[in-house]
Amino acid sequence: MNQNYIKPDNWSIIEEGFDKERVKSSESLFSIGNGAMGQRANFEEAYSGPTFQGSYIAGVYYPDKTRVGWWKNGYPEYFAKVLNAPNWIGIGVKISGEPLDLNTCVAVNNFRRELNMKEGWYERSFIAVLQNKVEVLVKSTRFLSLDLDEVGVIKYEITPVNQDVNIEFAPYLDSGITNEDTNWEDKFWDTYNLAHDKNEAYILSKTMKTNFHVCTGMLSEIFIDGEQKDISPKVKMDGTSISLNYGVEVPKGKTTSIIKYGGYTVSLNHEEDNLKNASTAILRKASESGFDVLLNSQKNAWSKIWEMADITIDGDVKAQQGIRFNIFQLNQTYLGKDARLNIGPKGFTGEKYGGSTYWDTEAYCIPFYMATKDQLVARNLLTYRYNHLDKAIENASKLGFVNGAALYPMVTMNGEECHNEWEITFEEIHRNGAMTFAIYNYVRYTGDYSYIPEKGLEVMIAIARFWHQRATFSTDKNKYVILGVTGPNEYENNVNNNWYTNYLAKWCIEYCVQNIIKVKTEYKSDYERIVEKTSIAQEEVEAMLEVADKMYFPYSEKHQVYLQQDGFLDKELITVDNLDKSQRPINQKWSWDRILRSPYIKQADILQGFYMFEDQFTKEELKRHFDFYEPFTVHESSLSPCVHSIQAATLDRMDQAYTFYLRTSRLDLDDYNKEVEEGLHITSMAGTWMSIVEGFGGLRIKKGTLSFTPKIPKEWKGYTFKVNFRNQIIKVNVSQEGTSFTLEGNSDLLIFVEGKEVKISPNNLITV
Amino acid sequence: MNQNYIKPDNWSIIEEGFDKERVKSSESLFSIGNGAMGQRANFEEAYSGPTFQGSYIAGVYYPDKTRVGWWKNGYPEYFAKVLNAPNWIGIGVKISGEPLDLNTCVAVNNFRRELNMKEGWYERSFIAVLQNKVEVLVKSTRFLSLDLDEVGVIKYEITPVNQDVNIEFAPYLDSGITNEDTNWEDKFWDTYNLAHDKNEAYILSKTMKTNFHVCTGMLSEIFIDGEQKDISPKVKMDGTSISLNYGVEVPKGKTTSIIKYGGYTVSLNHEEDNLKNASTAILRKASESGFDVLLNSQKNAWSKIWEMADITIDGDVKAQQGIRFNIFQLNQTYLGKDARLNIGPKGFTGEKYGGSTYWDTEAYCIPFYMATKDQLVARNLLTYRYNHLDKAIENASKLGFVNGAALYPMVTMNGEECHNEWEITFEEIHRNGAMTFAIYNYVRYTGDYSYIPEKGLEVMIAIARFWHQRATFSTDKNKYVILGVTGPNEYENNVNNNWYTNYLAKWCIEYCVQNIIKVKTEYKSDYERIVEKTSIAQEEVEAMLEVADKMYFPYSEKHQVYLQQDGFLDKELITVDNLDKSQRPINQKWSWDRILRSPYIKQADILQGFYMFEDQFTKEELKRHFDFYEPFTVHESSLSPCVHSIQAATLDRMDQAYTFYLRTSRLDLDDYNKEVEEGLHITSMAGTWMSIVEGFGGLRIKKGTLSFTPKIPKEWKGYTFKVNFRNQIIKVNVSQEGTSFTLEGNSDLLIFVEGKEVKISPNNLITV
Repeated sequence: MNQNYIKPDNWSIIEEGFDKERVKSSESLFSIGNGAMGQRANFEEAYSGPTFQGSYIAGVYYPDKTRVGWWKNGYPEYFAKVLNAPNWIGIGVKISGEPLDLNTCVAVNNFRRELNMKEGWYERSFIAVLQNKVEVLVKSTRFLSLDLDEVGVIKYEITPVNQDVNIEFAPYLDSGITNEDTNWEDKFWDTYNLAHDKNEAYILSKTMKTNFHVCTGMLSEIFIDGEQKDISPKVKMDGTSISLNYGVEVPKGKTTSIIKYGGYTVSLNHEEDNLKNASTAILRKASESGFDVLLNSQKNAWSKIWEMADITIDGDVKAQQGIRFNIFQLNQTYLGKDARLNIGPKGFTGEKYGGSTYWDTEAYCIPFYMATKDQLVARNLLTYRYNHLDKAIENASKLGFVNGAALYPMVTMNGEECHNEWEITFEEIHRNGAMTFAIYNYVRYTGDYSYIPEKGLEVMIAIARFWHQRATFSTDKNKYVILGVTGPNEYENNVNNNWYTNYLAKWCIEYCVQNIIKVKTEYKSDYERIVEKTSIAQEEVEAMLEVADKMYFPYSEKHQVYLQQDGFLDKELITVDNLDKSQRPINQKWSWDRILRSPYIKQADILQGFYMFEDQFTKEELKRHFDFYEPFTVHESSLSPCVHSIQAATLDRMDQAYTFYLRTSRLDLDDYNKEVEEGLHITSMAGTWMSIVEGFGGLRIKKGTLSFTPKIPKEWKGYTFKVNFRNQIIKVNVSQEGTSFTLEGNSDLLIFVEGKEVKISPNNLITV
Repeated sequence: MNQNYIKPDNWSIIEEGFDKERVKSSESLFSIGNGAMGQRANFEEAYSGPTFQGSYIAGVYYPDKTRVGWWKNGYPEYFAKVLNAPNWIGIGVKISGEPLDLNTCVAVNNFRRELNMKEGWYERSFIAVLQNKVEVLVKSTRFLSLDLDEVGVIKYEITPVNQDVNIEFAPYLDSGITNEDTNWEDKFWDTYNLAHDKNEAYILSKTMKTNFHVCTGMLSEIFIDGEQKDISPKVKMDGTSISLNYGVEVPKGKTTSIIKYGGYTVSLNHEEDNLKNASTAILRKASESGFDVLLNSQKNAWSKIWEMADITIDGDVKAQQGIRFNIFQLNQTYLGKDARLNIGPKGFTGEKYGGSTYWDTEAYCIPFYMATKDQLVARNLLTYRYNHLDKAIENASKLGFVNGAALYPMVTMNGEECHNEWEITFEEIHRNGAMTFAIYNYVRYTGDYSYIPEKGLEVMIAIARFWHQRATFSTDKNKYVILGVTGPNEYENNVNNNWYTNYLAKWCIEYCVQNIIKVKTEYKSDYERIVEKTSIAQEEVEAMLEVADKMYFPYSEKHQVYLQQDGFLDKELITVDNLDKSQRPINQKWSWDRILRSPYIKQADILQGFYMFEDQFTKEELKRHFDFYEPFTVHESSLSPCVHSIQAATLDRMDQAYTFYLRTSRLDLDDYNKEVEEGLHITSMAGTWMSIVEGFGGLRIKKGTLSFTPKIPKEWKGYTFKVNFRNQIIKVNVSQEGTSFTLEGNSDLLIFVEGKEVKISPNNLITV
C-alpha cells in the first residue's frame, strides 16, 4: 500500500519529492498513451538506478517460445509478449561535462511529477545539484498526440541556477532494447538500418518472427531563452542506436530547451518500404505545428473525451481523482478506432501477462466503451472476435472438438491461444460464454440488432456447439454435467459443475437458439448464408437444447444457495475475517494446493453470474448468495471489488459498496497489491466505472430503455456521469437531495427511475 | 512396438544387422551398469549418426534451475538432473588414415550385439567396409566390473580382412559433454585438471553447483596377435579432453586389440585431493589382473546374483528372456550396498524424469530386493528415507504443515523435493503413505521389528501428522475428507476424496498408533527418545485417530464399489474397448483436459490399494472392483500391468494375467511405448518380478510365514523362482503337474500352500 503518496487533486496525479524506491512505481502511474503507442514515465536523461523501461506500440508483439516445465498436449507453441519497443524518448544530457543522472546527483530538490489528465500531458521538474557543484532547474513536458497518433512530443528545459554552464543535449533513438519478460532471453528486435539528416534520425528495425517493421524517428530543435538555434549536431551511431549531439553555452538564469518530436511508423499502417518517408513526413508536420500548437490540440482532444466520459464526484477528492485516473487510463489504452486492437490487461504500462486480449474486454470493458463512445467502438470490439472466429474454431479442434465448435483463447494477440497453464488454457472455458454475453449486452444497450445476422450469430453458433460438446451426460445424475473446469474464481482448478460455467453454457445455447429462430424469420438471406457456412441443422439445435434443458446446477438445500461447484460444502468454511492477517494475500503466502482446498474465492464467481443475469434472480436470492459467498472472498483479483460494489449497492448496503468502490478505483494509485511497478490494472478500471454508473447510479437496460435507481454514498455531496444511449447523451446528476437528468439531442426519451417511467426532454433539467 | 526385433534367447539380448534408426533404442537396451556406474551402449569409436550419449555415476546429479511457465508458491528452486558424466569409453579409430565411423562406412556387415545377462558383459561385432576400400572385422567387448565397481573394461579388437593396414587407436577421455535434458543450457561440468602418464590419462572435473569431484581415468594396453606391445603414445589434449594415440601396423588376417580400463573415482567415496591417486591405484589393479581374470570374476559375480535371483520359465523363450532382462537391469541399477543410493526410474540408461527416487521404490521395488538379496538391502532402502526425514519435514513446512509433519518428495536426489507440477508436487501426496507401507511390508516379510523402534516409528509419526493435518472436517458429510489430491491414477488431478489416498491416510494413522503403543510397551528407551524428539503426546494421538475413524470413503450403492474419487460416476463411462484405436495412447492423442474429464485410468488406483491391503477385502470385493475399473484402465503407466497381472491371477483369470505379464516383462524389449531410446523403465521391472512371484506363484506373508497359491499360464511348461525368507532360501518349482519346494539352510520351515500348512525341510524336494 502506498496511501497518501500521490497528492489528492481533482484533475492531476501529482508526486512530490524524489524517492529512488518509488521510481518504478511512478513510471507506471505516470504512463502516457494515445491508443496507438504508450510510454512508461521513464526519465529522458540517463538514470543508473532501478528502472523498468517501457515503450509500446499497439498491435506489435513477439511470439515468445512457450516455457513450461512439463508439456501437455494442446499447449500453444508460443506466448505473445507485449514488446518493449525502441526508445524514442531518450535525451542524454551533460552539464559542464557531467552526465545528468538523478541516481548520482549530490541532491535532487523540488522533484515533482504531474500527470495532467484533463489535458493529457505529463510533466516532471526538479533542481539537481551535480557532483561538479552545478545546480540546474530541469523541467520536462511530454505527451503522445491524440491527433497525430504516431507522434510524441517532449520539451526538455534546463536553467542553470548557480553558474554559467555548457550543456550537451544528445537526443537519441535506441533499438538495442530488451524485454524484462522473456522466456528464453531471445533477441526480439532486428535492426536493419540507421539514418540521419541534420536534426532528424531514424532507426528501421523489425521484430523477430512476427516481422513487424517499425521506423522509430526523431526530430530535434534547440532553443536558448526561447529562441531557436541552428546548431549542427555531431552524430554518434552504433549498430542499434543513434544520437545527435548538440552543445550549447547557457548563462546562469537563462533557459535552454530541446524539443524532441519522436515516435513510430509501423508496417501495420504503412507499406514497409515507405516507413521512413512516413516518419519524416509526420515528424516534420509535427515540427511545423510546433510544441504549443500540438499541446493545444492535445488539450482540445482530451476535452472532447472528458466532455463525454467524465464522472464528477463532489466532496471526495480521492474518489474523484481515482475515477478520473481510471477513465483517463482506459482512454489512453484504447480509443476504438482500429478493430485490430484490443485492451491489454496492463495497457501500455507494463509487460506482464502478455497478449492483448482477455475475457476482461467482453465482461468488463464493453459497457464503458458503449456508454462513453460512439457505439461503433463497441461494435469494433465485437468484430475483433468475429474476425478471430476461424482461429477459435481451430483452437477448439486442437482440444478435440469438432464440427465448427469454437473455443476463444484465454489470452491472445491475433486470435491464437497463447496461454499455457492447463487449468486455465484448457479449463477456464467460461471465457467463451463472455463472447456471447457481450453480443447480447451490445444489442441490449445499443438496439443495433443488425450485428447478430451480420456477424454475431456465427460466433454464437460456434460457441453453442462448444458447450454442447463440452457437456457430458451423467447417468448417475440424469443431467448434463460440465466436468473439469476452472471458473472465474481461479482459486479452484479442474472442478466439476462450476455453477457460473454451467449457467453460462445453458444460457449461451438458449440465446443462440432464440437468435437462430429470429434470424431465420426476419433475416432470410443472412440465415441462408449462415446455414451454408455453418451447416447448422434442426437436429443439432434440438440436441443443443436438450443439453441446456437438462443442465445440472449444484445446490444446497440447507443454505438455499447454488454451490460454486460440486463439493464446495466439503471445505472448511472459515470466513475471511477469521483468517489471520499474516496469511494474506493468500496467493503470496500459501502454496497452491492449500489455496485450492480452502474455501477462499479470488473473485466473484457465482456473483459474477448474478451480476450478468440479474433479471433472472430475485433480490432475495442475490442477498442470500452475496451473504454466503462474499465472506469467503479475498478479492485478490482486480476484477472482484467492482462486481461486489455493484451488488452491495443493489442490496442497499452503501457503506460496503463505497468500500469496494475505493478499493477498485484507487487500486493502483494506492498500490493495494504492492505491484504497481509492473504496470497498471487497465481492464479492471472499466469495472470501476461500472461501480459508479451501474452500482451507485443503478443504470440498467429495461424494456429497451435506460433505467436508474440512483444511490449515493454518505461520504459524497454528489456525483455526475454521462452516458451515450443510442446516440442521445444523458447526463445524470445525483446528490444527497435527489437526482436530475439532462438530455442532449433532439428527441425526448422515456426512461425509468426507481422503476417509474420518466420522460426527459432535450436541454431540460429534470429532477426526480 | 518393436516386436521380433530382439532375437529370442534364454540368456542374452541379441540384435543382428545394423539399422541406423535403431541405434538410440539399442543404446538403451544394451546398457550396462554395476550399481555404482552405468553406460549406455554407445559405440567406442566415433559415430556421426544420431546417438544419445550416456555415462552415469550413481549419486552424482545436477540441480538444474526449475523451468516453469507460471510459478506457484512452494515450487522447488531446482530439478535434480541425472547427469551425463565424462566419457571414458571412447576410442578413436583410424584405419589407414580413415576414421572408423559406421555412419560413413560403405557397408556394415554382420553387425551383431549381444548383452550376455548370465555373465554380465556386452559385445558388439561387425565387418566394416571403409571408403578407402579397407575391410575390417571389429569386435568390442565391455563390462562394468561388479568386483571393482569403479572400473569398466573394454577389449576392442580389429582384424583387417582384405589388406595390411595401419591402425591408429586413440583412446580418450572427454569431460566436454552435455546433457540432452537441460532446462537452461547450463554447463554442468567444470574441468580443472588433465594429466597423463605413459599409458594412463586422467581428467579431474567437478559438477557445477553440487561440487561432486570426479576423476575420470583410463589405462590402455595394445596387443598385436595376442602379444602386448610397448608403444609410446602421442598425447593430444584440449581443455576438456585427452587422448593417447597409438599407431600400429597390422598385417591382413592378424588381430590387433586395445584393452582399455577406465572409470571414475568420486568424492562421494574418496577425499577430493586423493581422487587421482585412487583412480591410478584401481586402474593399475585392474590392469594387473588383466581382462580375462576380470571377466572371469564378472561371470562369477553375476552367477552369484542369478543363483539367488533367477526365475526360469520353461516353454516360452520370450517370457524367459523378458523376466531375465528385468532381473538383470534391476541388479545393474541397484545392489543395495550404499544407503545413499536409490533406484532411479531410468536407472543408468537415460536422463528422463531426473532425480533418483520416486515412490516406485517403496511400492514396487522393495519386495524384489527383500526376496532376492540379504534383508540389509531392503533395510538400506528404508534407511535412505529415514535419513531424509528432516528434509521431508522441511518440505511439508513449506506447504504450511506444522509440528513435525512430513511430506516426502515426489522426486528427489538428496531428500529435497525437486518436482514442479502443482498437481503432482503438492497433490500426489499418496506417496507419503508408501513410505509407511514399505516399513510395514519390510517388517512383515523379514520379521525384523527392530527397524521400527530404531528408525521407522519417527518416520511413521511424521507421516501420520501430515495426514492428520491434511484431512479436513466436512460438516456437510460429518466425516473427514481429503480435498485436492492426485491419486496414483495421474489422469485425474486435484480431485476430492481419492479412495486410495483416503484409505492409505487412515491406515497410516492407525498403523502408526499401533506401533506407538507397541514401542511404548516393549521398547521403553526407544520410546522415550522418540517422545523427546517428536513431542508426540496422547492428545495428538487421539486427534489423529479421530481423523482415521471418521475418514470418508466415496461409495456407489448401485455398483457396490468404492469410487475412485468424488464424482467418478458423473463421467461418461465408456469402456476402453469402445474407444477407437486411433485415439490411443490418449496421453499422446488427447489434450490434458479431455483426459482429465474422461473415465480413463492411467494406472491401478483403487486396485493399487486392494493390492497393498489385500487381506482387508474379500475376493468378491476384489472381483467387483476389478471388473468395474479395469475396463476403464489404459495402462499408460509402466507400473499398471504388473498390479493387474497379480490381481487377475488372484481371480484365477490366467489368460488375462498372462497378457498383462507379457506387457510388463517385455515393455522395453518390444518397445510397447515407442520411447525406449530415452532409456529403460527400471522401476516397473520390479513389478514384473512381482507378477510372477506374487501373481503366478501367489506368494504372500500369512501368520508370519510364506504362503503360496501357485498357478501357471497354459503357455508355460513350468517356472521356478527363489526367495530369501528370513535367511532361508526357498526354491519354488511350478509346473503344469504341480508345485515343488526346496529349502536351503539348516532348519525346517512351515509354509502355507493353497492355505494348508506344509512343512518343508532343507534339501528335501517337497511336491504338493
